[in-house]
Amino acid sequence: MIELLEDERLDYLLAEELQIIQSPSVFAFSLDAVLLSHFTYLPIQKGQIVDLCSGNGVIPLLLSKRTKAEIMGVEIQERLYDMAKRSISFNQLDSKIKMIHGDLKEMPTLLGSNQFDLVTCNPPYFPSKSPDILNENEHFAIARHEIHCTLEDVVKSSSQLLKQGGKASFVHRPERLMDLFMYMRNYRLEPKRLRFVYPKEGKEANTILVEGIKDGRPGLKVHSPLFVYNQQNEYNEEVRAMLYGNEK
Amino acid sequence: MIELLEDERLDYLLAEELQIIQSPSVFAFSLDAVLLSHFTYLPIQKGQIVDLCSGNGVIPLLLSKRTKAEIMGVEIQERLYDMAKRSISFNQLDSKIKMIHGDLKEMPTLLGSNQFDLVTCNPPYFPSKSPDILNENEHFAIARHEIHCTLEDVVKSSSQLLKQGGKASFVHRPERLMDLFMYMRNYRLEPKRLRFVYPKEGKEANTILVEGIKDGRPGLKVHSPLFVYNQQNEYNEEVRAMLYGNEK
Repeated sequence: MIELLEDERLDYLLAEELQIIQSPSVFAFSLDAVLLSHFTYLPIQKGQIVDLCSGNGVIPLLLSKRTKAEIMGVEIQERLYDMAKRSISFNQLDSKIKMIHGDLKEMPTLLGSNQFDLVTCNPPYFPSKSPDILNENEHFAIARHEIHCTLEDVVKSSSQLLKQGGKASFVHRPERLMDLFMYMRNYRLEPKRLRFVYPKEGKEANTILVEGIKDGRPGLKVHSPLFVYNQQNEYNEEVRAMLYGNEK
Repeated sequence: MIELLEDERLDYLLAEELQIIQSPSVFAFSLDAVLLSHFTYLPIQKGQIVDLCSGNGVIPLLLSKRTKAEIMGVEIQERLYDMAKRSISFNQLDSKIKMIHGDLKEMPTLLGSNQFDLVTCNPPYFPSKSPDILNENEHFAIARHEIHCTLEDVVKSSSQLLKQGGKASFVHRPERLMDLFMYMRNYRLEPKRLRFVYPKEGKEANTILVEGIKDGRPGLKVHSPLFVYNQQNEYNEEVRAMLYGNEK
């Protein structure tokens, strides 16, 4: 049994055979969360994972099916935190995923520094002063704009949470790649893997996936590009497998 | 008439209908120079262009066919400088391309700061201490390794040479992308366009093309990826056109 509030609905994460609470007026995860959860390094047998800016818990849910490690999700909006908790319970994953309602900047103090093997984050993409913020309700504005945390906050907290050699995986927009790289190097997260996501062949990239290692040695690998749609505007095979699983 | 020394040969730049002196034991240009000359912004009607680490002058020669601007090439190795000069004369381009035999670090003093509209550079890719340097003759070692100039020297001199709003285009290896970005931002060349070159689909990138603007505003565009070979190991159409021109 699950209690759904207002305009919430229960969506499927088909590839993972899970369900997740979403709400068109509050939060619905995007493809970027799915891309990040497939891009990131993942400790399989054990380890500690924390997902920042967790929203409705989509990344912890997606990761949970492929690892035995403990996963924490951190979300500052109580409404989203509550959605995440109910989704986790509905999927009977309470023993594996723990949601924390709080500010990511306080997590190194609360959860401990130099503890984690992996930090993932799909942060707000837009500066807090961008004009479209005026057309959004508070929930969307906080999820999309740097209101409660800046990109620098995200990178700094991620680095503090990670143990030496731990990994941080981020998804963001190409326009911010420079800033992301700068902050990562400043906070000792050396970028090691990079993948660009293009809506389709011949278009500019609209998404970047970056993984860094705390105190890692310089040396970046740039993976093969990911095209989301083929020329017929259908999901490409790789994306289809992420979303729907490997159909027989 | 042209005088060829030792093992020099005269190769064709087919797309440009030019010829260029090369030597297997001294210097032969690589695809990277061709990629850079097609990636870079180019002032068409007028302006001042300087190509650093010019080698046998391949980039000035390639650019000369598409611009009326003056082009300077800077090369520290006298033997290569001499090859470049003879190629330029053979193609009757002396009025358009001027070669300078000297150290790029001295060019801002020699040629003047804040003068140029465009700087291009295909610099040495490898640190001066990498082990394979021992197997190379002096000419190759200088062209490939950071013996006479480091990446930081290249970026610093480029920035000094450029006027505000001028552009710098570089080709390098993905492993050095982080360093290149850092130096560019440090020396006021804000990265604005980025393109990755992959040997073929499904492989990691092996070349990066980056363009920055002096005192430009942050905001990076990532262009569609370039695959050099198709699955049949033939050059892809775009590369073929760069090398051989648009055949009818």
